[in-house]
Amino acid sequence: MTSSFGQLFRVTSFGESHGPAVGVIVDGCPPRLEISEADVQRDLDRRRPGQSRLVTQRDEGDRIEFLSGVFDGQTTGTAMAMMVRNKDQNSGAYDHLKNVYRPSHADWTYEAKYGIRDHRGGGRASARETIARVAAGAVARKLLHEAAGIEVLAWVSQVHDISIETDPTQVTLEMVEADPTRCPDPAAANRMTAAIEQARCNGDSLGGVVTFMARNVPAGLGEPVFDKIDADLAKAMISLPAAKGFEIGSGFAGTRLTGLGHNDPFEPGSDGRPRLVTNNSGGIQGGMTSGSDIVGRVAFKPTATIASEQQTVTTEGESTVLAAKGRHDPCVLPRAVPMVEAMALLVLADHWLRQRAIAP
Amino acid sequence: MTSSFGQLFRVTSFGESHGPAVGVIVDGCPPRLEISEADVQRDLDRRRPGQSRLVTQRDEGDRIEFLSGVFDGQTTGTAMAMMVRNKDQNSGAYDHLKNVYRPSHADWTYEAKYGIRDHRGGGRASARETIARVAAGAVARKLLHEAAGIEVLAWVSQVHDISIETDPTQVTLEMVEADPTRCPDPAAANRMTAAIEQARCNGDSLGGVVTFMARNVPAGLGEPVFDKIDADLAKAMISLPAAKGFEIGSGFAGTRLTGLGHNDPFEPGSDGRPRLVTNNSGGIQGGMTSGSDIVGRVAFKPTATIASEQQTVTTEGESTVLAAKGRHDPCVLPRAVPMVEAMALLVLADHWLRQRAIAP
Amino acid sequence: MTSSFGQLFRVTSFGESHGPAVGVIVDGCPPRLEISEADVQRDLDRRRPGQSRLVTQRDEGDRIEFLSGVFDGQTTGTAMAMMVRNKDQNSGAYDHLKNVYRPSHADWTYEAKYGIRDHRGGGRASARETIARVAAGAVARKLLHEAAGIEVLAWVSQVHDISIETDPTQVTLEMVEADPTRCPDPAAANRMTAAIEQARCNGDSLGGVVTFMARNVPAGLGEPVFDKIDADLAKAMISLPAAKGFEIGSGFAGTRLTGLGHNDPFEPGSDGRPRLVTNNSGGIQGGMTSGSDIVGRVAFKPTATIASEQQTVTTEGESTVLAAKGRHDPCVLPRAVPMVEAMALLVLADHWLRQRAIAP
Amino acid sequence: MTSSFGQLFRVTSFGESHGPAVGVIVDGCPPRLEISEADVQRDLDRRRPGQSRLVTQRDEGDRIEFLSGVFDGQTTGTAMAMMVRNKDQNSGAYDHLKNVYRPSHADWTYEAKYGIRDHRGGGRASARETIARVAAGAVARKLLHEAAGIEVLAWVSQVHDISIETDPTQVTLEMVEADPTRCPDPAAANRMTAAIEQARCNGDSLGGVVTFMARNVPAGLGEPVFDKIDADLAKAMISLPAAKGFEIGSGFAGTRLTGLGHNDPFEPGSDGRPRLVTNNSGGIQGGMTSGSDIVGRVAFKPTATIASEQQTVTTEGESTVLAAKGRHDPCVLPRAVPMVEAMALLVLADHWLRQRAIAP
Repeated sequence: MTSSFGQLFRVTSFGESHGPAVGVIVDGCPPRLEISEADVQRDLDRRRPGQSRLVTQRDEGDRIEFLSGVFDGQTTGTAMAMMVRNKDQNSGAYDHLKNVYRPSHADWTYEAKYGIRDHRGGGRASARETIARVAAGAVARKLLHEAAGIEVLAWVSQVHDISIETDPTQVTLEMVEADPTRCPDPAAANRMTAAIEQARCNGDSLGGVVTFMARNVPAGLGEPVFDKIDADLAKAMISLPAAKGFEIGSGFAGTRLTGLGHNDPFEPGSDGRPRLVTNNSGGIQGGMTSGSDIVGRVAFKPTATIASEQQTVTTEGESTVLAAKGRHDPCVLPRAVPMVEAMALLVLADHWLRQRAIAP
Repeated sequence: MTSSFGQLFRVTSFGESHGPAVGVIVDGCPPRLEISEADVQRDLDRRRPGQSRLVTQRDEGDRIEFLSGVFDGQTTGTAMAMMVRNKDQNSGAYDHLKNVYRPSHADWTYEAKYGIRDHRGGGRASARETIARVAAGAVARKLLHEAAGIEVLAWVSQVHDISIETDPTQVTLEMVEADPTRCPDPAAANRMTAAIEQARCNGDSLGGVVTFMARNVPAGLGEPVFDKIDADLAKAMISLPAAKGFEIGSGFAGTRLTGLGHNDPFEPGSDGRPRLVTNNSGGIQGGMTSGSDIVGRVAFKPTATIASEQQTVTTEGESTVLAAKGRHDPCVLPRAVPMVEAMALLVLADHWLRQRAIAP
Repeated sequence: MTSSFGQLFRVTSFGESHGPAVGVIVDGCPPRLEISEADVQRDLDRRRPGQSRLVTQRDEGDRIEFLSGVFDGQTTGTAMAMMVRNKDQNSGAYDHLKNVYRPSHADWTYEAKYGIRDHRGGGRASARETIARVAAGAVARKLLHEAAGIEVLAWVSQVHDISIETDPTQVTLEMVEADPTRCPDPAAANRMTAAIEQARCNGDSLGGVVTFMARNVPAGLGEPVFDKIDADLAKAMISLPAAKGFEIGSGFAGTRLTGLGHNDPFEPGSDGRPRLVTNNSGGIQGGMTSGSDIVGRVAFKPTATIASEQQTVTTEGESTVLAAKGRHDPCVLPRAVPMVEAMALLVLADHWLRQRAIAP
Repeated sequence: MTSSFGQLFRVTSFGESHGPAVGVIVDGCPPRLEISEADVQRDLDRRRPGQSRLVTQRDEGDRIEFLSGVFDGQTTGTAMAMMVRNKDQNSGAYDHLKNVYRPSHADWTYEAKYGIRDHRGGGRASARETIARVAAGAVARKLLHEAAGIEVLAWVSQVHDISIETDPTQVTLEMVEADPTRCPDPAAANRMTAAIEQARCNGDSLGGVVTFMARNVPAGLGEPVFDKIDADLAKAMISLPAAKGFEIGSGFAGTRLTGLGHNDPFEPGSDGRPRLVTNNSGGIQGGMTSGSDIVGRVAFKPTATIASEQQTVTTEGESTVLAAKGRHDPCVLPRAVPMVEAMALLVLADHWLRQRAIAP
């Protein structure tokens, strides 16, 4: 259903921007995984607002609380619930939005769907919803690391017209976290920072691209037909707020190669298994992992909330002009990095468990 | 599960390239929809091999047979099964593939996953699997047309480096079907044809992009958080064979706009509801339809099967060289058009039913 | 998955007896239903321990807190989370159970499944888990009442060898709540009370039967084949702690009738629709509601926790003898009533929404 | 959804009594299981009509055909489709039912739900639908036998007022199949046969009880809360045509014991694990298998189709009188045995796979 994701590693989320709390139930995590609130807090802190000048200044501690499913520091195998209380809810700042639809937000579509909407900070459509994803992703990260050695990493590879050409296999977490932009190329990071600050001054906003990667993924994860692992990754990523595009491997650029240049030849691997010489497939063939690194990209549109005036209509159908108040990110890309990682982790954990069930 | 798709309009597919049959169960279609085998055959004929020189010459009538769920020409509301017998199974043509992994196919990954694979024509990974999708999509098409006036159309908008700039709102089915390439721009279609024929002569293959569109979609279809309608479209499309990229609305190009240029202003609509002045959102905001047309794009890689020699390994781990025999498409794009339409139709039918359940 | 129930009205629960909290996410409730914490508290108070001498004296206020999904006193259509903090956790009372398996509890089976168990108060297997069911059921109750006039009622119809022959159609909520046993027959209720108190004195426990009923149910709810509404009711009821049997309509007794006596004749109803003269079917035929009242019965075994000594083994595999300490119910029947109602309500809400999606 | 059952071992069925075919897709069966059409035919032949005078004389060969998912005599791990063509469709025999609702059938409820019904032989509500269950169950049987040594057996333990007291642990397949009644007690079988024949002569019908059992089930299968294995068994059984009651272990009779008599003491087992001295739990505690045999019972009402005249109404709302023509079983019990086995097998296969995914 709408607030659940995954078949075996199954997460169900709840929470609005200005409701009492945001949280998640992780059902299906195997028992006896050592996990603490600190393991989850680490990823939440990367998602948290107020980390740097680049992102929204809403001041939320975003402290995670475990509500169930962990006993003596280990998962019990039963439903694991985690919650973050909302604190800095300046709801009054949203009063002017009660009777108007913000362009390119979910205001109008929620109204059309439900005939009611929580106008405070976007309600359920707020990016605060991603706390649930990142918290669940942190559990998946621990599981995949401990049980299978799988690692997931993402970074900002483009902001507006500034893009990098870094070799994905060379990027490390340290490189990503070295700069508030989460761009592993320091020179590009500086230019991105300048562009984002300029956009803020202009009452404008910027979009960009996050590249993600998974390493040490065993061959054979994923399913035929509908539940291909790249299809699940696509859904996972496009379900993120502001995501407008998804690529696996060569993506759209690959359409300009020919078959001869695009196919990934095999050579005998040192372990006796086939090894792919190139990786245009992005680590996935026929919907299943090949043993190569998974590499993909997610496009995020420029933040819809901008301080400049825009044309819109009121809930009464009158023309009006709106300029955003309240706190917001002029560029979501740096904070999108842990969200993209979380979604990749959830997909991988789910398919890793699914493969365990039928593994020869 | 892996062979099922959708929550309420739910399809479950079966069938391998060289097994006895390919088919699908559609569960959840509302009762009393008038439907005949001819309604389904029409779309299957667009997907069928052997339609033109541009596509594989495998000669399959692909005649659909209804097995259940239809009585006196109407759906009964119970599970609707449909099947196509495989006929022209030149399985011997695949004997040379029993002990070798074709580059950028699913041969190696199926072996890694299952420890067994049906090597004949790709088995379950064959594009013949899409018969099930297209047949089910034809039922969804009839339902959405009759019950809601929703129409879905797709076309080839790029082959290799030849792309068109047609205004999506102006494209008609007649324009698409006028040329075997299914490109609605006749001049571009001619150049695409030449490029595809040249690729075949070279023992090579081409990829490209299919653009899809849905018209007359009511506002409010789609769900918050994970089951956003664009997220489900992304999964649907990336689950198609050879798909490597997905965009909704402005997609990757939108990352080079700023918020001011990307946001879609509202104006009062003639029906008293808000109307979007532009459509960078591609008809979807916050994961729900806005009432504007849905517009998206799907990237397909160049066909993996090529007649030229390629480096690979045998199932015994020895280096070898392989050149494809058998019939294959030098460019899947023309036949991908009905597949993309089918997947869009399945997603829309599912969300349309989901919205009926809770509609205010 | 394991902690979720329902397709469209979907609940996902969490919480252990001695963890921080027990709660539930209700996803799929239609928007604009007026609901308050008091609506939920009313049912929780009926489930709560410490209501009378007949049930466990654990002192829990069991105050419900809404965490999301309600805005200005109405459901928003998005995920609704509710939580109860655990308070009176006398965990030390369970230390003696850390290394021993209680007979006919879930201690050994959890250990066998997970290799770890939260021994405090039964952990996830505790009946405190049913707080989540009852809270979600209260939302379903409000929805079904407001939107469709459907009412669900249950009562104790048997304790040990004391059973009643009340006509189900005559039972009212007032009759049920008039006595702590929740048996609507006052004379039988007195005898049941005496029997339960005697069992407690004996260090023993009693089982019995809860009868449930749903009124004003429209014809046509339920699905063919696997998701028959009686099948979903059966799963719902047998998933309750201590449930060992389920009957719909005539149940096991019906096997002693012949077809002539068992079939329910039709007569013309006052509304022009067929009316059933008798109701051996229990309101369901072919898995769908007939328009008659739904009537069924659930068997609960005698409480497994008893103060008398019992033979068992330690986690080290040694024979030992165990007598329960801590608080427990000598008879779960009175508190099972709101649980049974909740499960019936969840099934009905789900099928009511499912029918809305496809209704002619 | 309605025509699907199971999470990992997932079956989806189709087919009406007088449509072209009845069949099933089994998705999620592990790869490399040796399986042939003969393995499935064996169970179908036990379900088939016309086996003896006791059951309907409809003459269907019910030959199974594999359509996908098996290659070189082994499952491939992909969707396995199986189909039986309907042959002896004497549809004309049902013309008189087009405008009348048969008492205690699904005629009226299907009409109420869908506004359309296939009146020929019950359409989707026909017991021919169980071909799909039995075929899928045969695959589950092979899997559980080969991979885990689990065996499932059912038998008729009661017809009308004739019941047996056989020790379940002593019943063998040979004993069950020795008599057309599938009652393992020869004396009772004779009396049941006489009673069934008498009912036929009377234009009447009989009901009864099937007992089922699973042996060699490892401890720890099943899930907490909603997907308890007994809850899934309850749903599975009550979803069978004509089923009205379900019991696990002591069932309703257990409500007349006290806790002291009902609890199953543990003693040290020869393998160092706890062993249950008694089995009132029916092999399941807290929703998970204990390692003891699973034992349960299913009540089937007397066949609704009887040759005697009954009061009913027409589709126009007029009173009328109806006596069944066509072929039918005066007692479904003997044929229900393989159906009950199939449902138990499907539940066990599903939970066995689910446990593999998370097993410590």
